[in-house]
Amino acid sequence: MNKILKNGYGMLLAYDQGFEHGPTDFNEKSANPAWIMDIADSGYFTGVICQKGIAARYYDKTVRKVPLIIKLNGKTNYHKDEEPVALQNCSVEEAKQLGAVAVGYTIYMGSEHEQEMIQEFANIEKEAHAKNLLVIAWIYPRGKHISDDVDKDVLAYAARLGLELNADAIKIKYSGDPETFKWVVQNAGTTKVFVAGGPKTDTTFQLLEIAREIKETGAVGFGIGRNIWQAKDPLAIAKQLAEIIYA
Amino acid sequence: MNKILKNGYGMLLAYDQGFEHGPTDFNEKSANPAWIMDIADSGYFTGVICQKGIAARYYDKTVRKVPLIIKLNGKTNYHKDEEPVALQNCSVEEAKQLGAVAVGYTIYMGSEHEQEMIQEFANIEKEAHAKNLLVIAWIYPRGKHISDDVDKDVLAYAARLGLELNADAIKIKYSGDPETFKWVVQNAGTTKVFVAGGPKTDTTFQLLEIAREIKETGAVGFGIGRNIWQAKDPLAIAKQLAEIIYA
Amino acid sequence: MNKILKNGYGMLLAYDQGFEHGPTDFNEKSANPAWIMDIADSGYFTGVICQKGIAARYYDKTVRKVPLIIKLNGKTNYHKDEEPVALQNCSVEEAKQLGAVAVGYTIYMGSEHEQEMIQEFANIEKEAHAKNLLVIAWIYPRGKHISDDVDKDVLAYAARLGLELNADAIKIKYSGDPETFKWVVQNAGTTKVFVAGGPKTDTTFQLLEIAREIKETGAVGFGIGRNIWQAKDPLAIAKQLAEIIYA
Amino acid sequence: MNKILKNGYGMLLAYDQGFEHGPTDFNEKSANPAWIMDIADSGYFTGVICQKGIAARYYDKTVRKVPLIIKLNGKTNYHKDEEPVALQNCSVEEAKQLGAVAVGYTIYMGSEHEQEMIQEFANIEKEAHAKNLLVIAWIYPRGKHISDDVDKDVLAYAARLGLELNADAIKIKYSGDPETFKWVVQNAGTTKVFVAGGPKTDTTFQLLEIAREIKETGAVGFGIGRNIWQAKDPLAIAKQLAEIIYA
Amino acid sequence: MNKILKNGYGMLLAYDQGFEHGPTDFNEKSANPAWIMDIADSGYFTGVICQKGIAARYYDKTVRKVPLIIKLNGKTNYHKDEEPVALQNCSVEEAKQLGAVAVGYTIYMGSEHEQEMIQEFANIEKEAHAKNLLVIAWIYPRGKHISDDVDKDVLAYAARLGLELNADAIKIKYSGDPETFKWVVQNAGTTKVFVAGGPKTDTTFQLLEIAREIKETGAVGFGIGRNIWQAKDPLAIAKQLAEIIYA
Repeated sequence: MNKILKNGYGMLLAYDQGFEHGPTDFNEKSANPAWIMDIADSGYFTGVICQKGIAARYYDKTVRKVPLIIKLNGKTNYHKDEEPVALQNCSVEEAKQLGAVAVGYTIYMGSEHEQEMIQEFANIEKEAHAKNLLVIAWIYPRGKHISDDVDKDVLAYAARLGLELNADAIKIKYSGDPETFKWVVQNAGTTKVFVAGGPKTDTTFQLLEIAREIKETGAVGFGIGRNIWQAKDPLAIAKQLAEIIYA
Repeated sequence: MNKILKNGYGMLLAYDQGFEHGPTDFNEKSANPAWIMDIADSGYFTGVICQKGIAARYYDKTVRKVPLIIKLNGKTNYHKDEEPVALQNCSVEEAKQLGAVAVGYTIYMGSEHEQEMIQEFANIEKEAHAKNLLVIAWIYPRGKHISDDVDKDVLAYAARLGLELNADAIKIKYSGDPETFKWVVQNAGTTKVFVAGGPKTDTTFQLLEIAREIKETGAVGFGIGRNIWQAKDPLAIAKQLAEIIYA
Repeated sequence: MNKILKNGYGMLLAYDQGFEHGPTDFNEKSANPAWIMDIADSGYFTGVICQKGIAARYYDKTVRKVPLIIKLNGKTNYHKDEEPVALQNCSVEEAKQLGAVAVGYTIYMGSEHEQEMIQEFANIEKEAHAKNLLVIAWIYPRGKHISDDVDKDVLAYAARLGLELNADAIKIKYSGDPETFKWVVQNAGTTKVFVAGGPKTDTTFQLLEIAREIKETGAVGFGIGRNIWQAKDPLAIAKQLAEIIYA
Repeated sequence: MNKILKNGYGMLLAYDQGFEHGPTDFNEKSANPAWIMDIADSGYFTGVICQKGIAARYYDKTVRKVPLIIKLNGKTNYHKDEEPVALQNCSVEEAKQLGAVAVGYTIYMGSEHEQEMIQEFANIEKEAHAKNLLVIAWIYPRGKHISDDVDKDVLAYAARLGLELNADAIKIKYSGDPETFKWVVQNAGTTKVFVAGGPKTDTTFQLLEIAREIKETGAVGFGIGRNIWQAKDPLAIAKQLAEIIYA
Repeated sequence: MNKILKNGYGMLLAYDQGFEHGPTDFNEKSANPAWIMDIADSGYFTGVICQKGIAARYYDKTVRKVPLIIKLNGKTNYHKDEEPVALQNCSVEEAKQLGAVAVGYTIYMGSEHEQEMIQEFANIEKEAHAKNLLVIAWIYPRGKHISDDVDKDVLAYAARLGLELNADAIKIKYSGDPETFKWVVQNAGTTKVFVAGGPKTDTTFQLLEIAREIKETGAVGFGIGRNIWQAKDPLAIAKQLAEIIYA
């Protein structure tokens, strides 16, 4: 795990929104993966997360220092009223060739297609560990069976599922307060917990406050995107967060 | 079968509830797999049952004496109104590498997805026996076609299905009285029968009474979890059960 | 075909009811596969039919003389209002290792899942013939499209399907009279026809009468279970049938 | 293509109706594949079409002169209100071993399952051509999207699909007049067109008239069954057709 | 990419309409693939796009100079009210053997079957790049979730999906004005953008105007069919377009 941690903590720059949400999240700058890679390589991040196309075309493993994490599945934003599912679109071996130290995969816990994703994830986990790559599970409770995806019991279940499936780390949403989130983290056992940064917060103060809170809970840090690259000064925010996270 | 029996009887500590039910079954102690592994290794149990993530991170095969049984499938608790299905998330070979002497797999008998699970189980059975691992089938009658899952005829059918599919042992619910359960066990033939411990009983007396009853029926013992690790003194209960089961 | 015929005729003892119907067909004696194997090995039968679990645990190929036929698929009795489907749960190679001379597979002709079973059967037929095993198709017209499964045209179609799929033999229901059944058998061409014994007849006379009738039709004999092992004296019935069938 | 043509024309005797329609098409004689094989081998036909079971049991490749074409898929007649689908039940290699010079496969164009059949056909086409076998596509527009399966535009589309999928030949229905059928044939490009004989015509004159018409259109001949073997004198009809077709 | 570009721009002659729309797009001339291949080989085009059947029968790689692009999937026009899906009908290896320098595949973005196509495309992309072939994704937003398939945000999403999936180039519809299309192209990053020519425009002037517009946007050119081969003088149109595109 130390490959994507510093002093036991980590901050992963997420840039798979082009696939998951489409370019509505982007402006002229952030639409450009090269600009993002430079931010990722600023020294404030312990990893950058993207799909294989972005990695193949914008991450030069002979030059970049920031560790690469390739998301192995994804879905477009056009499936709002369907039970969610995202399937593998990149092999573990391809990820390795592109220079990845870790692979990521989203499981929509509770979806009618949950078993299909669990099975695909299980095969990825086996192969990735055999090839000495880390495995990060995005565990997102979603679908008709899920009424509140930041409920502490739902999040604790998500955390536990990551552990039971042998993920090295998981990325999940924050419950909103450190007290309940401690229980969430506890159920992940030795599996590390990254908190999803989510949509841009109203103020920088809010974001830093969350950073301070999650450190109390045992989580290792953030998987964060929009709060960085939608900010006016991404590196300034990154620096402020880094001072809290890696402290 | 002697690998998971003592004097022809067995008591398997079940700890896959984190996957199947979520952490609502747990408290601060029981959420910790290390604490469970110590209970399992107390000498009162002939096996511990968990998913691969728990085994990989908390079961050290060079240290632990209690035999390991890895559950190869599982599903979350968010599918109440669907026809149940759980698919393989760990290969037989991985289970073997982690130190397992047996693998487990749940078949939801009567579910619309029954055939998918039977087919997956059949492949597991073939591979596990070829690799000298025992095969335990959880046979749970469930879905819209099943009105009473502890009816003696339904349980006898479940037992028989385990035999016909060449399981070394099955884990099924108790019918509630030894007379009807004898018929259930009889239909399992040479396939061994473990009774599912189920939710915590109101009193220890009730639990010990069931232990005494199932010994009359030809069953070999318990697959038991919550009645152990939700108890105030797990080892005290385990000791009392062991005195009955292995007598 | 001579492996499972005597003088060109055959009587196969069917014992897959534990899977297909559940133990309701059984009593204390017939629930025990060992008791059945002794009946099968009485000399009156040219084969015994069971699932792999029964074969693995109760058929010792170094001792038994009666040829073994392993049913490679099966389904439980809990799917009454679904379009029927049963999928492969034992490989041809496993059947061979267990000592089988033939494999069996049920195709529910007319079911919405018919194509899935035809495709699986086709692969089994290829592999079994390559391994020098006989292939018997249970062809049962069933599902919403079938109004009368003993109609002579429906049965003739079933017989024909067995031939077109290159089954060595088929097991189908009896139409009820030898005149119409001749047409059924004729459409099977060189594929041999076994008549399914079905539920226990009211009197022995009825059963022997059917045996006499089917001999007129060109069928080679019976695949018969309940009429044998639900009888008070199974061997007496078997003897009476054998005298007609092999005459 | 010359393997199944004479002077550039061909007449293929179709005998897969036992699978597709059931024995209702047959009488005592035509139910017997041996009788059909003799007709096929009369010299008037450039091929005989059947399923693998018929070929394995009634076509002796060391004796027969008529080229063998094995149909690799088929479905029973019990699926009238379903979107049609027929899946592969015989491998290309098996067909080759049985002596086939060509393989056939039906695609129900427009069916909801169209893609599944196109994909299976594509794999068959690849393998068959690699093994030097010809590939004939039955392209039958069918399902809820098709209102008129002999409309000239629909048939032209069917013909075109055969070309785009690299079939050596197709078998399609006749549009009813040579003028429109010329456009159909034109869209098949270098892929040869066989006209499906269909149900028995009322008079021999009608049948011969169609034979004359289709020769005008660029089609290479007939895939014909019932009009031959349901006739009082099959060889007389075959002779009359041959004189037109191969002229 | 230079294999299918000239001075950094390209014009690909599309001829897969026989599969996608049927022969209604054709007249006597355009129904003939040989006539199309001559147009494609006129020097005005940097590639010709067709299905494997057309390539196998009409593209002689020892003679033709125009680069070949094989479309690896396709569906017929009979699925208007279904969620769209088209599956692979030609392997990458076959395409290479036929002389292709690139392969194409359509993803219906937003369809309920989107994941199936993304997964198939991902495997194609991996294999094609390993075999040194270019990969072009047709990304067509379609299905019940898509209300306007030429909306700039929808098209920008389509462009982005192509980049994220590591397509070398994409073919998408034009938004209608260069201003919005610049944003679309920008989101494709280093993935090249071909504009789909679409149905025949009313006047040549309109078509040339679009050609001029798309050059402003960063797109590399056209994938164009009907506007060429439905024109009275295809080569005259091609010449006029070429003068704009390659300028």
